[in-house]
Amino acid sequence: MLRFALSITLISCAFAAVPALMPVPVTVRLATGKLTLDSTFRAALVSAPDARLEASIGRFVARLSRQTGIPMLGLKEATPKLRIECAGAGNDYPTLGEDEAYTLDVTSEGALLKASTRAGALHGLATFGQLVTLAQDGFEIPAVHIEDKPRFPWRGLMMDPARHWMPLEVVKRNLDAMAAVKLNVFHWHLSDDQGFRVESKRFPKLHQEGSDGLFYTQDEIHGVVAYARDRGIRVVPEFDIPGHTTAWLVGYPELGTTAGPYEMGRNWGVYENVLDPSREETYAFLDAFFEEMTGLFPDPYFHIGGDEVVAKQWDASARVQAFAKQNNLKEAHAIQAYFNQRVQKLLQKRGKTLIGWDEVLHPDLPRDIVVQSWRGQKSLAEAATKGYRGILSWGYYLDHLSPAAFHYGVDPMSADADSLGPEAKSRILGGEMCMWAEYVTAETVDSRIWPRAAAIAERLWSPATNRHLKSMYARMEMVSRWLEWTGVQHRANYAPMLERMTGGRPSEPLRVLADAVEGLGLGPRQRVGKYTSLTPMNRLADAARPESESVRALELAAANVAANPKGSPAEAALLRREFSRWAANDGPFQQLAAQSPLLVELKPLSRDLAALGNAGLKLLDALEKGQAPAAAFVAEQTREIARMEKPAAEVNLAATRPVKALLKGGRK
Amino acid sequence: MLRFALSITLISCAFAAVPALMPVPVTVRLATGKLTLDSTFRAALVSAPDARLEASIGRFVARLSRQTGIPMLGLKEATPKLRIECAGAGNDYPTLGEDEAYTLDVTSEGALLKASTRAGALHGLATFGQLVTLAQDGFEIPAVHIEDKPRFPWRGLMMDPARHWMPLEVVKRNLDAMAAVKLNVFHWHLSDDQGFRVESKRFPKLHQEGSDGLFYTQDEIHGVVAYARDRGIRVVPEFDIPGHTTAWLVGYPELGTTAGPYEMGRNWGVYENVLDPSREETYAFLDAFFEEMTGLFPDPYFHIGGDEVVAKQWDASARVQAFAKQNNLKEAHAIQAYFNQRVQKLLQKRGKTLIGWDEVLHPDLPRDIVVQSWRGQKSLAEAATKGYRGILSWGYYLDHLSPAAFHYGVDPMSADADSLGPEAKSRILGGEMCMWAEYVTAETVDSRIWPRAAAIAERLWSPATNRHLKSMYARMEMVSRWLEWTGVQHRANYAPMLERMTGGRPSEPLRVLADAVEGLGLGPRQRVGKYTSLTPMNRLADAARPESESVRALELAAANVAANPKGSPAEAALLRREFSRWAANDGPFQQLAAQSPLLVELKPLSRDLAALGNAGLKLLDALEKGQAPAAAFVAEQTREIARMEKPAAEVNLAATRPVKALLKGGRK
Repeated sequence: MLRFALSITLISCAFAAVPALMPVPVTVRLATGKLTLDSTFRAALVSAPDARLEASIGRFVARLSRQTGIPMLGLKEATPKLRIECAGAGNDYPTLGEDEAYTLDVTSEGALLKASTRAGALHGLATFGQLVTLAQDGFEIPAVHIEDKPRFPWRGLMMDPARHWMPLEVVKRNLDAMAAVKLNVFHWHLSDDQGFRVESKRFPKLHQEGSDGLFYTQDEIHGVVAYARDRGIRVVPEFDIPGHTTAWLVGYPELGTTAGPYEMGRNWGVYENVLDPSREETYAFLDAFFEEMTGLFPDPYFHIGGDEVVAKQWDASARVQAFAKQNNLKEAHAIQAYFNQRVQKLLQKRGKTLIGWDEVLHPDLPRDIVVQSWRGQKSLAEAATKGYRGILSWGYYLDHLSPAAFHYGVDPMSADADSLGPEAKSRILGGEMCMWAEYVTAETVDSRIWPRAAAIAERLWSPATNRHLKSMYARMEMVSRWLEWTGVQHRANYAPMLERMTGGRPSEPLRVLADAVEGLGLGPRQRVGKYTSLTPMNRLADAARPESESVRALELAAANVAANPKGSPAEAALLRREFSRWAANDGPFQQLAAQSPLLVELKPLSRDLAALGNAGLKLLDALEKGQAPAAAFVAEQTREIARMEKPAAEVNLAATRPVKALLKGGRK
Repeated sequence: MLRFALSITLISCAFAAVPALMPVPVTVRLATGKLTLDSTFRAALVSAPDARLEASIGRFVARLSRQTGIPMLGLKEATPKLRIECAGAGNDYPTLGEDEAYTLDVTSEGALLKASTRAGALHGLATFGQLVTLAQDGFEIPAVHIEDKPRFPWRGLMMDPARHWMPLEVVKRNLDAMAAVKLNVFHWHLSDDQGFRVESKRFPKLHQEGSDGLFYTQDEIHGVVAYARDRGIRVVPEFDIPGHTTAWLVGYPELGTTAGPYEMGRNWGVYENVLDPSREETYAFLDAFFEEMTGLFPDPYFHIGGDEVVAKQWDASARVQAFAKQNNLKEAHAIQAYFNQRVQKLLQKRGKTLIGWDEVLHPDLPRDIVVQSWRGQKSLAEAATKGYRGILSWGYYLDHLSPAAFHYGVDPMSADADSLGPEAKSRILGGEMCMWAEYVTAETVDSRIWPRAAAIAERLWSPATNRHLKSMYARMEMVSRWLEWTGVQHRANYAPMLERMTGGRPSEPLRVLADAVEGLGLGPRQRVGKYTSLTPMNRLADAARPESESVRALELAAANVAANPKGSPAEAALLRREFSRWAANDGPFQQLAAQSPLLVELKPLSRDLAALGNAGLKLLDALEKGQAPAAAFVAEQTREIARMEKPAAEVNLAATRPVKALLKGGRK
């Protein structure tokens, strides 16, 4: 019997023995009691046999074993501690809108997970894993009753192996992490100016000439689709046309609007190359191409990109202009709409629904296509108003390295969507985060996706009323550690990158600096302007986290100490310790930088960090004595911090924030 | 043109811009100049095409890219910077004694690698990777002329998936690391009392009843053999008989000497269960079993274990005793020799040479078998004297967690082998390190193999005259970082394990303590006596390194400061910093331990570490003032250190060593 002792919202559970759930379930009722985990732990499907779900349960137990360090052998003689009832397998392949709900009941005797479909059962297992807590007697799960289901049916992550190659294991480990936070769509941006990444047997020059040898074989594609499917994730392929097609044109220049020859893109930014919409041969090629590619991807949605088409080549082509005139197409967008209509028919005859970026929206396209809004919430609302289904990506661009708080604050139903009627609202299917790969490699991409993607996953799954930032961050930081057991390397890649930068010398002074900075996203790095696909990605800007956990802790402490200088001795001690470390770090850092060429650009940052440490210590002294810091000191520090807030070496000195908080507090 | 500016032995290169080579090559002549690595780097086979070697070169470039953070796309239009000439592919499968030599010449224009066989070419690539250095202008390789070949033809690592299961990816990443330090034999201990780990189609109850579902499928075995082969590594399977066979007997009790039933071993130590040598059915079974297994493993050597046969069941069996009498077998060892002779013939008819542990040595066995000495160097010499070929494993037991210096000091040709004649010496083929898995899991095993295995690899490859410990450690610590780029996780697993122990709380106080201790090996952990295959392996004893790098640095500093207190200010500052950290760590640690159950057992250790820090600071003060520390203080600290040297919580407090060095110096 369950005893419901209390019903709580998991507002703050940082570092407490309360599990960090993310996405937070719809209903969580903690009870008294706990279920202990040990080597005899066994999970078993108690409804109709289902080999695929049973394999998923096996993987779940293996992860639980990694997470706890307890060997779990699934001993046949043991009674199952977690029983799983799945009413039916659901669809063989995950389907948009299928029932993903589950309930989970844990008592000291055991746990029961119930779902209508395999997808729901997988979500319940993910929640079970997050409930595992290290408590006085070892690893355990609190007694709890959970009812849960998603808010949006389309919860995606887009990855881009075109700009920087992402080997198979990167894709797979990210699929595992996606499933762990209940994401259900993997959008695979498989071609762009800088690479065509799928083996084509029909048109082999696509991958032979357009990939530097870095492409997925068709066997590998089948493998990824099956891997994702087994984790409840749909795979939506994207072949971006008619722009973003330089890599196609290297092998097949006859598809282009200009004569060629073409070379694979090595630079970032938008290319002018574009398919020729005026030649029937283009459509014949695409027809045969879709024939092949739709056979690789069972999902009913097929993404044709369609973004950022540059009109220049079409405008300059007499042939295209004659064609446009003949078909009464007034400008480039109309030409693109014509092209899209043709493409849509080619997909439709193969049972596929077209999905494209904002720019595909045009009244000539049928209402069943899906629009992915990247330019803003306005375009999503516009699409919904016009009768199109849409998903939001604006606000979920992971490559901008924005704080999780920013992404968490973006809701597909807010802003322009807020005033829509219920029918239009029902056309908003969810959202997708985008991990464009100009400034990430296989080594760094995990740290640009995780843990921030978990916060977006919560926005797309949990009730909209969950908006408490402090709770979100506390849980995200716990879940970040937990995600490492799923296989992603967003934390593990940090130390090896720092050690590479020091040429293998002891790297602690660099770590102290690295912990105090944050990497910059696409915009500012683009403005530096020297990057190509051949540029090394081995600097602090690549190793630094998008958000510094340790600086965040200091900011919280500083705000409390500023508000109540004598009431927070532990927090004051934390600040004093860290400020002292910053102040003392510059000497060892400069020594290290003298021998480590990749650190040279960081010397001024290290000096600034030391200055912040010293300023912070002075401010603490004043606050503790109940004195206001001298006006001249405040003015000088304010000036200095303003200077330090300008990025250097393509990182932000996040350490300014806690000092600023004290400075502000000291002025009150 | 090469200019040979100097000829050096790489005695000490820690943290200098000189590459850390391990195993150190036979001849290394540095010249002036350097080869710069950038995105246009390309390596190409310039001799006859060889798809397999070309695939290896592709993997090598991918690793170089990970190691440097430079995208290396192998651009077809780029001139190859590394040209590889391979006179012939050599044998399709790596072969004992084949020519593994190579030469490598690097100039500022490019590099040329020459080898007679694929094996030699692979070794040259491994050396090239270790030559990569971070210098003023980025990553580069110094101009150098290298001539190299191995001292011993058999350089192995044994892994044991029977005691704790080792998933496929663990095996594969360790094969990659083995190749990186030029090891060439993977000895796979596939069955023992605690598990039978290979799918048998002929006798399916072997893996079905004897593995808890944790076994390698035959497809996976084929995959591992091919994976190893492509890295120049032979795979020698071991099926340990007639003892260590409990897991066989679960499914096939009729093979046993007693009636059964049998259960899979869950405890460590030697089991009494043993095959029945008196029944023809036993040999018929083995005949069919070998038929199947020899088909899986192309290597001409086949390991039958043969160690630690307990006589008890044979002694107690009337049937076995009658059989022994009838065959004039006077005691258990003679019975085992009879059994081995039969087994040897079964293998011989399939073209396989028997290899076994020490105990198989018996005059009735033919001279072509190979003996693996685990009990001491005496048994190796004895075997060689009697005309048997042998390999040394005594002294290379990684599971004892001995210091690298100990293993490095063990030479297959030393001790009892030293006095052998040249012919007997020629029978010593090399050595094999053993990674028995009672006290390691898939999570921790890498950190128990690496980096110490690199030191043993050097012992087995490089000229015997390389014995300088300081050089060995300096290079090993560099190579340890470099090995992470091959995929092993001996460093990466540390932080996640510590974070698990703190339940996700900030783990720095635990890290400070963990850095100051060393894990204990099989012997002491066995004496604790509570371990089974179901025991969690999630404590500090499992996370702690076998040797602490940071304590080693402190020991070196302490020795210098003790010898010359005023002559080593940088080292004195290092000691002061670290001692202060230890002294200040106990407060935060006790706070953390109050909330983290897995830390409770470590509370006294943390207090001891703080005491060591305080004692160290006092000793530094005295040394710097040129005073001898007070006699009473010295006596007290000597007593305290003696107490602290006793293991606690299954770790050693390594931090005693630098303080002891100061104490000793202070008494001079």
